[in-house]
Amino acid sequence: MKVCIIGSTGHYEYVLKDIKYDPETRIVGVCPGSTGEDVHLLYEIIKNDYPSLKIYDNYIEMLDELQPDICVVCCYFGDHAKVAAEVLKRKINLFIEKPIATDLEDLYMLHELYSKSGVSLAAMFGIRYTPWFLTAWNAVKSGKVGEIRLMNAQKSYKLGKRGVHFKNRKTYGGTIPWVGSHAIDWLYWFGAKRFVSVYSSHSKFYNMGNGDLELTALCHFVMEDEVFGSVSMDYLRPNTAKSHDDDRIRVVGTEGIIEVRECEVYLMNNETCGYVELDLCDGNKGIFWDFLKQVKNEGKCLISAEDSFYVTEASIKARISADEKRVVYFD
Amino acid sequence: MKVCIIGSTGHYEYVLKDIKYDPETRIVGVCPGSTGEDVHLLYEIIKNDYPSLKIYDNYIEMLDELQPDICVVCCYFGDHAKVAAEVLKRKINLFIEKPIATDLEDLYMLHELYSKSGVSLAAMFGIRYTPWFLTAWNAVKSGKVGEIRLMNAQKSYKLGKRGVHFKNRKTYGGTIPWVGSHAIDWLYWFGAKRFVSVYSSHSKFYNMGNGDLELTALCHFVMEDEVFGSVSMDYLRPNTAKSHDDDRIRVVGTEGIIEVRECEVYLMNNETCGYVELDLCDGNKGIFWDFLKQVKNEGKCLISAEDSFYVTEASIKARISADEKRVVYFD
Repeated sequence: MKVCIIGSTGHYEYVLKDIKYDPETRIVGVCPGSTGEDVHLLYEIIKNDYPSLKIYDNYIEMLDELQPDICVVCCYFGDHAKVAAEVLKRKINLFIEKPIATDLEDLYMLHELYSKSGVSLAAMFGIRYTPWFLTAWNAVKSGKVGEIRLMNAQKSYKLGKRGVHFKNRKTYGGTIPWVGSHAIDWLYWFGAKRFVSVYSSHSKFYNMGNGDLELTALCHFVMEDEVFGSVSMDYLRPNTAKSHDDDRIRVVGTEGIIEVRECEVYLMNNETCGYVELDLCDGNKGIFWDFLKQVKNEGKCLISAEDSFYVTEASIKARISADEKRVVYFD
Repeated sequence: MKVCIIGSTGHYEYVLKDIKYDPETRIVGVCPGSTGEDVHLLYEIIKNDYPSLKIYDNYIEMLDELQPDICVVCCYFGDHAKVAAEVLKRKINLFIEKPIATDLEDLYMLHELYSKSGVSLAAMFGIRYTPWFLTAWNAVKSGKVGEIRLMNAQKSYKLGKRGVHFKNRKTYGGTIPWVGSHAIDWLYWFGAKRFVSVYSSHSKFYNMGNGDLELTALCHFVMEDEVFGSVSMDYLRPNTAKSHDDDRIRVVGTEGIIEVRECEVYLMNNETCGYVELDLCDGNKGIFWDFLKQVKNEGKCLISAEDSFYVTEASIKARISADEKRVVYFD
């Protein structure tokens, strides 16, 4: 299979990591997806592995010339939807950075194109595949905490030096869709319930000259059956911390509590007598491997197209709530 | 000084623990504060230490007869305000279980009585005095995390077997005022900013036959200067856990992050290179000792009367938000 990559801003590493396991699949073209984006570094990284690789400056030309089986879209976030639309119109399988759109109109437009396309689509909610999140989810699915009633999720990032596209709402889309969507995905994935409403807040204060970038944000989700979920986001992780991010979730159920913290999983229920650390499952192959399997009709990707659309919708609605300081409801 | 105790439902242990350090202060009377409350167990516990101790069944009679210098109120939560009003009218110093009232009308009535009384008043936000919370607060006050931008607080309790007053909103007041008010106090104490608004949710589902008791709750506070704070509450801590409660706070500032977790304190800022555990300060003497000092004009209690009223107001407003599913604003 032939893969094209549009943009090198997002997590194309998911692709580079997993494509190695599939000798039948190769990258054939790379191209910027946004004005000002430079994909030469990506081209340099992979050109030796793919001698026939071509670099383009117009992605429509690339898609029409190379006719790939899969297109990876990871340009400036505000351009995801526009680029994805061209991919879906051509009925090409789409592996796309989250959020797949940064406003609801674009999202609904994309969903309509997707519905008519017959292709596979997955957004890069790749954190689901980390051994710690997958281990926790497997434990929850096997009933270790009973019925989920409450979840607290956390995303904490180092600010570091951010590209220009982070500083403008139009290209960035907001911290809730960019950073928070991962954690909103966890709520939906673990909770396995629809969202009822969201109330959010975000702040640009102290963002060190990063324009529109919200340095902190907090979301309060109500899900079906009175399940509640908080999502805390910040770019205030000290630069000297060992890792870039500090991803956490705490899932509180009727029979126990499970937590993901510092890449470890802790479970407590009536059988454990306090927290016990769980053995982590294997995490060699990730999201793009899973997506490839689906494209080849060999399985279903853990992140469905409907998950990708729904979590993006929830993320955009959460940002709207913060912008407009009001509760936003789901249909 | 003479101390009377009305009710034995709340945390009178704060009094029994600290009063030992002050040989000049003694308990002279105990009496129920609520219909159906039985204070005989408390009487039995302390009668040997206070040979002249009397037990009453009418607290007004007790107050008028014994004329104490300090009255401790810890009856059914819905009766706190009614009982406290009688104490304040008699210009007796008041050490009272939180929440000091369970509706705003009672709270404002009490505040007016307090303003005219000239006495000392403190609500039992005694968790401030634990070595872990006090150590974290001292670190924050000394600038270790810079300007606070975001806080995540947690209260998680075992449900256990609850008295009948927990099962009725009228006597209980709600999980947000009873359990959450501690964490709301932490937000206010650490953040040192006024509240702007609150949005909350709570649920009685799966409460094991405990009537009106909300098993889970979540609050989203916006404070001045776009500081945000979440408060997560649950009664779902497994019965086999080592301790009754799992109190936590995470305080995210412009220069670092501090966390209280499992009675320990972790700080990370640009100087620490990852989390370091802080040495805990001394925690021998607690809230009632501090209150006694204030009554004797020897110092100021860490929990002021204004703190007690304001945090109770915030707790009641948070519960109103959850009851009415709307954002509630502060003046």
